[in-house]
Amino acid sequence: MTVSNVDALVFDVFGTVVDWRSGVIRDGERLNETKGLAVDWAAFADAWREEYQPSLARVRQGAIPWRNLDVLHRESLEQLLERFGVDGLTDEEIEHLNRVWHRLDPWPDAIPSLNRLRTDYLIASLSNGHVRLLANMAKRAGIPWDLVLSAELSGHYKPDEEAYLTAVDLLDLQPTAVMMVAAHERDLDASREAGLRTAYVHRPLEWGPERVDDAERPAESAYDIVAADLVDLADRLGSETII
Amino acid sequence: MTVSNVDALVFDVFGTVVDWRSGVIRDGERLNETKGLAVDWAAFADAWREEYQPSLARVRQGAIPWRNLDVLHRESLEQLLERFGVDGLTDEEIEHLNRVWHRLDPWPDAIPSLNRLRTDYLIASLSNGHVRLLANMAKRAGIPWDLVLSAELSGHYKPDEEAYLTAVDLLDLQPTAVMMVAAHERDLDASREAGLRTAYVHRPLEWGPERVDDAERPAESAYDIVAADLVDLADRLGSETII
Repeated sequence: MTVSNVDALVFDVFGTVVDWRSGVIRDGERLNETKGLAVDWAAFADAWREEYQPSLARVRQGAIPWRNLDVLHRESLEQLLERFGVDGLTDEEIEHLNRVWHRLDPWPDAIPSLNRLRTDYLIASLSNGHVRLLANMAKRAGIPWDLVLSAELSGHYKPDEEAYLTAVDLLDLQPTAVMMVAAHERDLDASREAGLRTAYVHRPLEWGPERVDDAERPAESAYDIVAADLVDLADRLGSETII
Repeated sequence: MTVSNVDALVFDVFGTVVDWRSGVIRDGERLNETKGLAVDWAAFADAWREEYQPSLARVRQGAIPWRNLDVLHRESLEQLLERFGVDGLTDEEIEHLNRVWHRLDPWPDAIPSLNRLRTDYLIASLSNGHVRLLANMAKRAGIPWDLVLSAELSGHYKPDEEAYLTAVDLLDLQPTAVMMVAAHERDLDASREAGLRTAYVHRPLEWGPERVDDAERPAESAYDIVAADLVDLADRLGSETII
């Protein structure tokens, strides 16, 4: 494992730093109570997230022009509300639900580990979430980014190489001085292709406890680091524990 | 004064939030000691800063392609070292001095006031300094930006309107929901022209105590707010004092 000369760590966010599934379930169940609904929000969350890559693909392949995640999420949300038979929400309630992606909570290890890593590295988001979404999320949850970076700044969604290379350029670094941290191999494979260092972080609970056994961890040799979680990543990168 | 419906405040940085002159003097005098020099660093700082607008103008007018402030500062610095007869610095020492713009300290009122304002508004830099410079500066000095925004993200230096409108776009707001805060009328005039709200902050010490009397404060009616300093701005925007 060679990770010397890394100056900046850039992080995938949905699934890697924050737990999108629990956040959608949390706000959905609140809506069940206030509106007298009986929606299965775990199933809803999974279905919403499953629309994510197909939405991005439409932008990536040029079928539709650039639009940010609020717009893509809203398009999927309206279809899903119909599919799940959810009636009677006002436009304001739908819009509030759509913005649950701004209000996701970090995995329990995320903030303490980011605070450790931040003493040795510049740390930034590098998400397909747009800049404003990421800023709102960080502010609400206290995520200590030195810098909010987003695929939006390149006008290309990950895993398009422009997303990674624009971030590297804004960091004023060579690609080899930047390490992409993600729970998704697709993201890391594209990062490596663009010349970045790579760290895989295992998040077996991303799709909920029922699917924990589906979550396969790649071989140690697949990336510069294959970490059990962000605590393990901070340990391996030698960041001191902050008491 | 109408400042309702403002969601985000974007700040000019050099002169408005940080005191560039004292920072250059501080590091320059350290160099006088270690290298046995006798440079007048107050005069040097002023001369360096006076090269700033002409440098930007070359980019803005298309005489040279986009380059970031480290490159522009370095070009000016090399000429000034010659003009001031400074000999015997290694390339590493020159580069370290060039990056003093990453290591400037905030004016004493800046961080407490930004912490107040941040409870009610999204706060971001909007400087001609590049993203990496601003991130390094904020990290070193503890400036609590929710978000680092920079003219670099538009590929145009302020006061080109693209610099303001790209920031507004990334904030996902209408221009009227964004207030530009600056100590420089040129910056505010262009912001207003681009449709933003404007707040002037008086910084009579920007060019040092000798030139304090040159610093004229615009009429109250010139901008949405004309503030004596950042404490006054936070008072006028109704941000509660954090004890």
